[in-house]
Amino acid sequence: MFKVVSKSTDSRARAGVLTTVHGEIKTPVFMPVGTLGTVKSLSPEELVKCGAQIILGNTYHLYLRPGCEVIERFSGLHRFMNWDGPILTDSGGFQIFSLAKLTKLTEEGVEFQSHIDGSKHLLTPEKAIEIQICLGSDIIMCLDQCIKYPTNLKDTKDAVELTTRWGERCKKEFDKCVNLTSGQALFGIVQGGMFKELREMSADAMAKIGFEGFAIGGLSVGEPKEIMLEMADFTLPKLPESKPKYVMGVGTPKDLVELVSLGADMFDCVLPTRNARNGQLFTKYGPINICNSRFKHDTDPIESGCTCYTCKNFSRAYLRHLYMAKELLAYRLNTVHNIHYYTNLMKHMRNAIKNDAFEAFRKDFYRKQDRRLT
Amino acid sequence: MFKVVSKSTDSRARAGVLTTVHGEIKTPVFMPVGTLGTVKSLSPEELVKCGAQIILGNTYHLYLRPGCEVIERFSGLHRFMNWDGPILTDSGGFQIFSLAKLTKLTEEGVEFQSHIDGSKHLLTPEKAIEIQICLGSDIIMCLDQCIKYPTNLKDTKDAVELTTRWGERCKKEFDKCVNLTSGQALFGIVQGGMFKELREMSADAMAKIGFEGFAIGGLSVGEPKEIMLEMADFTLPKLPESKPKYVMGVGTPKDLVELVSLGADMFDCVLPTRNARNGQLFTKYGPINICNSRFKHDTDPIESGCTCYTCKNFSRAYLRHLYMAKELLAYRLNTVHNIHYYTNLMKHMRNAIKNDAFEAFRKDFYRKQDRRLT
Repeated sequence: MFKVVSKSTDSRARAGVLTTVHGEIKTPVFMPVGTLGTVKSLSPEELVKCGAQIILGNTYHLYLRPGCEVIERFSGLHRFMNWDGPILTDSGGFQIFSLAKLTKLTEEGVEFQSHIDGSKHLLTPEKAIEIQICLGSDIIMCLDQCIKYPTNLKDTKDAVELTTRWGERCKKEFDKCVNLTSGQALFGIVQGGMFKELREMSADAMAKIGFEGFAIGGLSVGEPKEIMLEMADFTLPKLPESKPKYVMGVGTPKDLVELVSLGADMFDCVLPTRNARNGQLFTKYGPINICNSRFKHDTDPIESGCTCYTCKNFSRAYLRHLYMAKELLAYRLNTVHNIHYYTNLMKHMRNAIKNDAFEAFRKDFYRKQDRRLT
Repeated sequence: MFKVVSKSTDSRARAGVLTTVHGEIKTPVFMPVGTLGTVKSLSPEELVKCGAQIILGNTYHLYLRPGCEVIERFSGLHRFMNWDGPILTDSGGFQIFSLAKLTKLTEEGVEFQSHIDGSKHLLTPEKAIEIQICLGSDIIMCLDQCIKYPTNLKDTKDAVELTTRWGERCKKEFDKCVNLTSGQALFGIVQGGMFKELREMSADAMAKIGFEGFAIGGLSVGEPKEIMLEMADFTLPKLPESKPKYVMGVGTPKDLVELVSLGADMFDCVLPTRNARNGQLFTKYGPINICNSRFKHDTDPIESGCTCYTCKNFSRAYLRHLYMAKELLAYRLNTVHNIHYYTNLMKHMRNAIKNDAFEAFRKDFYRKQDRRLT
């Protein structure tokens, strides 16, 4: 299912191919977030044109709205949202711990109240798997306990141990329920907060259970950037080399370059989409905010040479105008550019790895990012 | 510039071609409203795919935001918003009377305060023309005084007379300023409220000044539907037969069918776009509201057989889900369908006129509209 095709000799960066029944994914890959069965403002065709190879759906959100009984009528999320490419769904755990009102955490699972209507639900490891199977996800994530930062060693260790036991239950449920011909894969999630010994313990435990891929959860939860990178640096080599390594919920363009150099293969983050809707646009010369008055009369595209639909057709002045007037098209054109920027950055990294020139790419990336856009 | 190509023998419906430097427009035509240099939520390519031949821009809005000095950098609205087709702009009069705080109406023009920042402005007939020339509009509208409903005869007559004098000044300014090779055209506006004698007086006066086309303004301003149609029925034959006749700001699908049968050639209205954003979708079996719970599990498209992008790719259940979750894609997919519905209705009317079967078309239209969508 996963094959490493190139390895960088001057870093731990690697390029690979992850195969799903909905197509091949070239790694390292960035997965745009499509929380509610839509990457906000974009059509499926636009996502493809923006270079998206795989998108992420949120189990928590989709379970509450529209609910599994609706998506089942469409035999899963792909047909419901008309997306033919691969889909990864998270387990819902992270959202329950961050969005919902958590009412009770037990060995059995998590009791929570919906952030929409206050209704009560119980999510168990088994149920998280069942929902994701019903969504038709190509990559299914185990239910985990994601803890806040900072937390003490004892609580973090308890969370790692619970995550391990839940991982075992998820694997068992997955093996029992999944149709072998469906091609669906299950990924485990490594927790452990900012404690290296717990990260190692969690990585070992997950590797022992055996999954098709391994994610690092619980990063980018408020800790300083250096600690996030230190944890990733420490944990990534502890994960099985033959499997894809996914750093969840990260990050900025610089984070992605660093994490790829440390051996990460997969990423998801709301940054390009959410920031697009807040007027922040990524460029190779660093981010700009389109509402800045210096763009008022600017006839240039966001980034000269960018091949995205937005840059090929519209100026900064027009995008600023749309944004200032709160026009719906603003959010869409900005999102197109940012998703394209992210997927293009990953493509450049893949090429650099294949040419065994990752360090040169990385230096050039930083040199440009630290220049000011003109 | 305008040529009638077919005339119905069982109604006053007619089909024509209006030529502009940005392309030919087949009439009867519906013009989607692109208030601020964007038909809300749609890209220019989507507009073309939805069948839009020409769009409308609002002078009042564009003058305030982003302002002429920005649009001038792009040599007009076409390049600013990347729309290659024809554009008609209104004069700004209607918006000043409805949106802005009107501070003073004099022979000279209209003093108003911006609804955005309260800044004071004076719009004269000459300035209305200059702004529209700067916007690069293919069809420029005269400044008129649009009055409220109901109003008395005296005030309405005063408004007609002022509109006539302003029409003369607009024509003079247009002839002085417009580049003859630009192909821009000027349309006059007939006022007269709900008084036939004033409508006739206004139509005669406008015809005498001489324009490339004639609009009926001041309809659909709160009067009962029968009065609107009665006024249009009375006024349309008073306008020069060889010129395009445009009923401004109207209307529902039924209104369009009625007005085409009375001889109208052009329409604009926010109904398909605004209602799309409110969840109302037009179908040949009448409108539906997508948030209705009966669509929750509905795997059918909005209208079976509809060839719009939305109907070809998405179900009512998905559209309902997006709408209930307030997803940006909801507004866009709904708008695509409604614009397509309107342009398609016009296309069917053109074909019916060419086949001299307008009355048969009209009867079939009503029979279907009054059936319930299944």
